[in-house]
Amino acid sequence: MIKTMLNRRSIRKYKSTEIAESTLQHLLQAAIQSSNVGNMQGFSIIINKTAEAKARIAPIHYNQPMITGAPVILTFCADYNRFNKWCILRDTESGNKNFHAFLNAMTDALLVAQSFCNAAEAQSLGICYLGTDLYNPEMSIDLLKLPKGVFPITTIAVGYPDEAPEQTNRLPLESFIHNEYYHNYSDDEIEAIYAETEAIEENRNFVIENKLNNLAQVFTQIRYNKDAYEQMSKNLLHMLKKQGFLND
Amino acid sequence: MIKTMLNRRSIRKYKSTEIAESTLQHLLQAAIQSSNVGNMQGFSIIINKTAEAKARIAPIHYNQPMITGAPVILTFCADYNRFNKWCILRDTESGNKNFHAFLNAMTDALLVAQSFCNAAEAQSLGICYLGTDLYNPEMSIDLLKLPKGVFPITTIAVGYPDEAPEQTNRLPLESFIHNEYYHNYSDDEIEAIYAETEAIEENRNFVIENKLNNLAQVFTQIRYNKDAYEQMSKNLLHMLKKQGFLND
Repeated sequence: MIKTMLNRRSIRKYKSTEIAESTLQHLLQAAIQSSNVGNMQGFSIIINKTAEAKARIAPIHYNQPMITGAPVILTFCADYNRFNKWCILRDTESGNKNFHAFLNAMTDALLVAQSFCNAAEAQSLGICYLGTDLYNPEMSIDLLKLPKGVFPITTIAVGYPDEAPEQTNRLPLESFIHNEYYHNYSDDEIEAIYAETEAIEENRNFVIENKLNNLAQVFTQIRYNKDAYEQMSKNLLHMLKKQGFLND
Repeated sequence: MIKTMLNRRSIRKYKSTEIAESTLQHLLQAAIQSSNVGNMQGFSIIINKTAEAKARIAPIHYNQPMITGAPVILTFCADYNRFNKWCILRDTESGNKNFHAFLNAMTDALLVAQSFCNAAEAQSLGICYLGTDLYNPEMSIDLLKLPKGVFPITTIAVGYPDEAPEQTNRLPLESFIHNEYYHNYSDDEIEAIYAETEAIEENRNFVIENKLNNLAQVFTQIRYNKDAYEQMSKNLLHMLKKQGFLND
């Protein structure tokens, strides 16, 4: 299983083979045993499998081909609506309507999502995360009919791989590790950490294609343009308030 | 591996056996292959192993015995400081200083954390999450010396189990699953979803001990008291701003 994790790569092209309902249920059952905050289990999973349903939600994800190409699409949501409804029935007021509660429910959703992915990959399935729910929360909320207390966190495409892509590089392990305290990086350390990434041919081509000077500029000026990112960020806070997670 | 996941339980009591450095490195190497947002790899991991270091950080976690009792304590942080420093060296301005960027870095930290847990449990190690960094972010930031651009997300105690606790119950799988659209819950559905949880002897005892009427009240009046939770939530937003994640 660790070997599978060490060799993993995200899959964007899937065979048309369906995932058996029993397999899917088994993977989901394993995933929900993951840790969660206070056993309040603040998450929900929306499953989309039919061609019609996938076509309907594709615009949330900028019509990336994984959505219609994968047999199963799972959207993991932060969800205290279920808990809040239980509280009303039990004559008490839920405290899960603030920003901290949102981060806790988001944590629950992401731990379940990642356990699902690890379990799926151990079964030779391939997955790809789409972070686009946070880009277009309003569309996600609308098309999935998410009530107050529920917020879309991430979507996963899952299916049997029909490609064998190169593994995406990671920074060296020691770049992420700090002993006892956070040891801040010197300029030389930053140079060493990013050297391999910058030398990769694909990354060098991105720089040339975009007529920029280096890879960092590709990230900041093309992929995660500061002004656009900040605008989306404002919208995200607005939508969190609308969905009942910023009531303090 | 799925069998391990289905049978998992959090472990709060550990043998004094050390985790071999090679095992720890292997698990961490597997974990960092997890998906992350845009391959910006916005996370860091602080490792605490010595008795002195664990005693020093125990107050962040309300001195819960897992901190000093486990051989290894890992704190997973959202981290764009490394990326931001790279951008400065490459003459461009990082856009990763807004709230959306924080949620993306938090996602990176949590996916790595959960993969680490899945891998560790597959190797017969036990883990326990401590969500207390979000309760005491200031203390965490101070004691771990986290610079701007870094935020503590969650801490994991890990070691060889010295207990075999009962598995904590989960709501029935179908409670979490929605087909195509979010199907909101009727009162009867809520009753059915929570029936088993409310019937568990341990949970019934919590209600009696706290002189309350039901389990939901234990959550809202004792464990996640609304006023205290909202106060912590305000502090969390304040600290996010201080750490450079609310600059929009």
